[in-house]
Amino acid sequence: MPNDRFARTPKPPYYAAVVAAQRTSGDRGYGATAARMTQLAASMPSYLGLETARDETGFGMTVSYWRSGASIRHWKQQIEHKVARERGNADWYDHDELRVAKVERTHGRPG
Amino acid sequence: MPNDRFARTPKPPYYAAVVAAQRTSGDRGYGATAARMTQLAASMPSYLGLETARDETGFGMTVSYWRSGASIRHWKQQIEHKVARERGNADWYDHDELRVAKVERTHGRPG
Repeated sequence: MPNDRFARTPKPPYYAAVVAAQRTSGDRGYGATAARMTQLAASMPSYLGLETARDETGFGMTVSYWRSGASIRHWKQQIEHKVARERGNADWYDHDELRVAKVERTHGRPG
Repeated sequence: MPNDRFARTPKPPYYAAVVAAQRTSGDRGYGATAARMTQLAASMPSYLGLETARDETGFGMTVSYWRSGASIRHWKQQIEHKVARERGNADWYDHDELRVAKVERTHGRPG
C-alpha cells in the first residue's frame, strides 16, 4: 500500500527537480535546516510534493515535484533556500547534482 | 568530490526513469536480482547511468538515465526485466511508482 513517503502528484505534465547528494559525516545542523527547507518548499504555490531516501553511507536522492520549470528556478532563487544551499556546499555535502526534468508519463499511482 | 554513486550523464536532453519504492522486509532474493537488473540495464545501448539510495525503512529512490523515452519503454518490455518486476510486485515491494521525465537542464557536474 502507498504510504506518506510517496508524493501525491497530479497527472503529467509537471516538473521534477532530481537531486543526488553525498552527505559529509555528522549532522552539523543539517537535520534542522533540511526540515525547514521541506516546510518552506511545501509553502510555495507551485510545489507538488517530494520523495527522498538517504542510505547509511550518506548518499541520497531527493526528488521534488513542481508545476513548471520556472517554479524550480524560483525555488532556487528563494533567499533562505539560497543561504541554506551555500551552507550545504560548505558543510553538509561532499558533492551534489541537480537535474531538472519534465515528467511526461507515470506508472503506478502517481498521476 | 564526485564518487561512483553519481551517474556520468551527457549534456541534456536525455531521459530519466524515476522510481520510488517501498521494500518489504527481508531480502527474499531481492539483492541478487537487483544486481542482475543493474547489469542488464547497463548492457543496453541507450542506458546512460543510474543513481539509487534506500534508507533503513526500506524506502528507496532509483533514477536511471536513458537516451530517449522510447528506450525506457524498451527496457520495461525486456523479458527478464519484466519477469523480475512481476516478482517485485508479488514479493519485494509494498508499492512502487515510476515517472518518466525528460531532463532539460542540470547544475553541478552532470552534463
